[in-house]
Amino acid sequence: MKTNPGRFFEDYRVGEVIVHAVPRTVGLGERALYHALYPARGAVHSSDEFARSVGLPASPLDDLIAFHTVFGKTVPDISLNAVANLGYAEGRWLRPVWPGDTLRAESEVIGLKETSSGATGVVWVRTQGLNQRGEPVLEYVRWVMVRKRRREVVVDAVVPVLAASVDPGTLVVPERLDLTRYDFALAGERHRWGDYAIGEVIDHVDAVTVEEAEHMLATRLWQNTSKVHFDVTQREDSKRLIYGGHVISLARALSFNGLANASFIVGLNAGAHANPCFAGDTVRAWSEVLDLADTAALGVGALRLRLVATKGAAGALRVDGKYLPEVLLDLDYWALVPK
Amino acid sequence: MKTNPGRFFEDYRVGEVIVHAVPRTVGLGERALYHALYPARGAVHSSDEFARSVGLPASPLDDLIAFHTVFGKTVPDISLNAVANLGYAEGRWLRPVWPGDTLRAESEVIGLKETSSGATGVVWVRTQGLNQRGEPVLEYVRWVMVRKRRREVVVDAVVPVLAASVDPGTLVVPERLDLTRYDFALAGERHRWGDYAIGEVIDHVDAVTVEEAEHMLATRLWQNTSKVHFDVTQREDSKRLIYGGHVISLARALSFNGLANASFIVGLNAGAHANPCFAGDTVRAWSEVLDLADTAALGVGALRLRLVATKGAAGALRVDGKYLPEVLLDLDYWALVPK
Amino acid sequence: MKTNPGRFFEDYRVGEVIVHAVPRTVGLGERALYHALYPARGAVHSSDEFARSVGLPASPLDDLIAFHTVFGKTVPDISLNAVANLGYAEGRWLRPVWPGDTLRAESEVIGLKETSSGATGVVWVRTQGLNQRGEPVLEYVRWVMVRKRRREVVVDAVVPVLAASVDPGTLVVPERLDLTRYDFALAGERHRWGDYAIGEVIDHVDAVTVEEAEHMLATRLWQNTSKVHFDVTQREDSKRLIYGGHVISLARALSFNGLANASFIVGLNAGAHANPCFAGDTVRAWSEVLDLADTAALGVGALRLRLVATKGAAGALRVDGKYLPEVLLDLDYWALVPK
Repeated sequence: MKTNPGRFFEDYRVGEVIVHAVPRTVGLGERALYHALYPARGAVHSSDEFARSVGLPASPLDDLIAFHTVFGKTVPDISLNAVANLGYAEGRWLRPVWPGDTLRAESEVIGLKETSSGATGVVWVRTQGLNQRGEPVLEYVRWVMVRKRRREVVVDAVVPVLAASVDPGTLVVPERLDLTRYDFALAGERHRWGDYAIGEVIDHVDAVTVEEAEHMLATRLWQNTSKVHFDVTQREDSKRLIYGGHVISLARALSFNGLANASFIVGLNAGAHANPCFAGDTVRAWSEVLDLADTAALGVGALRLRLVATKGAAGALRVDGKYLPEVLLDLDYWALVPK
Repeated sequence: MKTNPGRFFEDYRVGEVIVHAVPRTVGLGERALYHALYPARGAVHSSDEFARSVGLPASPLDDLIAFHTVFGKTVPDISLNAVANLGYAEGRWLRPVWPGDTLRAESEVIGLKETSSGATGVVWVRTQGLNQRGEPVLEYVRWVMVRKRRREVVVDAVVPVLAASVDPGTLVVPERLDLTRYDFALAGERHRWGDYAIGEVIDHVDAVTVEEAEHMLATRLWQNTSKVHFDVTQREDSKRLIYGGHVISLARALSFNGLANASFIVGLNAGAHANPCFAGDTVRAWSEVLDLADTAALGVGALRLRLVATKGAAGALRVDGKYLPEVLLDLDYWALVPK
Repeated sequence: MKTNPGRFFEDYRVGEVIVHAVPRTVGLGERALYHALYPARGAVHSSDEFARSVGLPASPLDDLIAFHTVFGKTVPDISLNAVANLGYAEGRWLRPVWPGDTLRAESEVIGLKETSSGATGVVWVRTQGLNQRGEPVLEYVRWVMVRKRRREVVVDAVVPVLAASVDPGTLVVPERLDLTRYDFALAGERHRWGDYAIGEVIDHVDAVTVEEAEHMLATRLWQNTSKVHFDVTQREDSKRLIYGGHVISLARALSFNGLANASFIVGLNAGAHANPCFAGDTVRAWSEVLDLADTAALGVGALRLRLVATKGAAGALRVDGKYLPEVLLDLDYWALVPK
């Protein structure tokens, strides 16, 4: 058979390194589409001039463009037969992606565990995105529930020990970044790193009602091939499931209103796609400040943020340990902010 | 509060200069999206070769890309709490925007007047778009009706005196533009400046049925943050109001059929968003030639055009001084045309 | 009248050369949109690095970007009053289109024949796409059924003799292309030219449910002005007919799954838009290997492929010589594949 049926649980081995297909050159076309698909307004990622004013040679591509491009490459090998995307951990952005860079991806299988049902298993992979010089631009751990081919297969469970959050001392600040002369007026908000307090909750006010064409354009742009996003015959309810990363980018862009200066995503601590998102949903977002950390870079602090996307009112997250049905995303990440 | 609630009528002072946030580098990605979003076919803005044949170094970005980008920057400061966009005047395009240019915007408050209801007031601003060298690329006056925080506040009314139309002697022709060797066959129509007569009406024949995804992609592309365009919970009828500038670009692109050689927009005399436009509307356009003016540039004449967009038959504009419900846009502008 | 009513059958003369309007510079913006609109994943057209590894200076634009751009230019002159797009023949891609190239198009009328109804006639044109150096990048024959102005007009029928398929000896391999060091792992599939057998049928597995906004964005991107794609008032059923080329690109992109290494389209033997496609249709594709041919280029073989797009199950093509209603496209083309 010439076509790729995707891997099943039995096809993974701990320690195996999977080279993902289709390297991709990304650039100003992808940036323009990112601005059309999401209400992204971060000044560093919008203006070459602004980026130069903070020490960079030009405006880098949005950190989530890097994430989605790398993630998309892993889909045919990791999640084509996945039942659920279970979590993220130990994510770090290691260097900016510049227009014209070519990204490829590799994943190492670091854990395997059958589920009690016997029909599925959990696969943990550590994925790395690399540029055309072989330099890592991004790494993260992801785990997914994957279908088994046969119920009877048994493997020795290997469950990786993962950090609850990324140690802020290991966060990588882009080379030459200097936020001491950051122009808060041009960036759109006056809030500095020190203006945020642990426990502070920010309602990002704005909302977007999602359309089918938009999430499909976005998901294809990242060459994500998962059938459920594109083909109404894949689910019994004839709905297209929206790529979880689309919700991440939507919520992150909405968070500009209150976090305009949290320009760079540098760490991904954890993330849950709490409930599916469908076209017609009106997505809102709120953030909670979880932690503050200093960095050695000029004028640069770090905020640990919980970013929550909901499809209704932005109220409680969980009842009895379970996410409320209105919660779409619960993401825990580190961002850089001018001091 | 960390988020921007937008300004209310009481927050403006005549003479105040507002520096709008988020400078934006625009380029070939934005151009490609413009061609995907609108049936734009002007040869100068489509082909580098054609642009060079009329003396320019390369194909500039569409004049409405400049307008929408600048307009979008003003929204958080000017129209977030606006009830209505009332008018435009004294608009002039001052130099082309080239791929790679970075645009920012400033507005001076030039007028304030409370409305008789007591609940709102009219704010006049003169907005300027600037490139990365600080050179103005565009300026225009816009006035909007803005909510008041409290009914009782009273300010001294200042109503600016605005020109009924831009004096054609003040229109700026792009440097080095020479239309004497303009290739009418390649441009798609044979009509020269002298072929148009005052009072002539051109039905642009083509029509576009608008989709939600399209107007949202466009409006986000210009980083326009007005909630009513994106969020179905903002209006009682659960409809998303289409950004008036989307209708301007649609109508202008449709006007290619009959005005293919009216390549450059150089002046904006007046404009009314006569009625709201919603997804599902089928938009048509017609133009009326209001005036002709000569310019000092080689082979370059100017046409003053009324561009009307409707969502049904292109018939009468008003009855008893009120726009008919089918009329979406009534725009009065100057364009350059080869002689 | 200033607007273009389109040509009728009587307006064509055999031997006439039509210079189509609006040259177009295409680049990385158009590529990004192509990746957003279609699930295109071919490595050569996705990555500059990969393209360099096979001898090219950079990643060329997708061969169908060239086709659609050239085709779009011909619409105002050839098919504005067309009732049906009847066929393609003798298509050859003659050199890659690089980001920054400017394309224009010319067509020679090579055949005319009235239909028995008296109301229409068939027009055959040979169209050539040219770059900014006047070098041909693409040529193909297309024939369309065009409305007549009056029933009584009679012309002498000239029916061109067209090759049933392009002689593989005349296919043009891009200069400097060397597929001997092609990286099959990075490209996504291990299948070489010799792994395909005549008669082999590949079901491409994936499917896409089409949205209105998507096909309109695509069709406008190619500056295709045919009213039926954009305006719901053009058909009695109020549906927008999807541009046949959108279905070609969709099916071709879906064929990545099983034909990942069939990177370059170099010949178009025949093509039928068997039935109309509308938004909401879920498009699938399958391919049949019709022939194999060697080339003189390093490591490069050619496959002749039938690409069939359907809107239901991928079963039989025809009953009693007529396409089944589920069949959307039946395309016969040559692609290059590493040996």
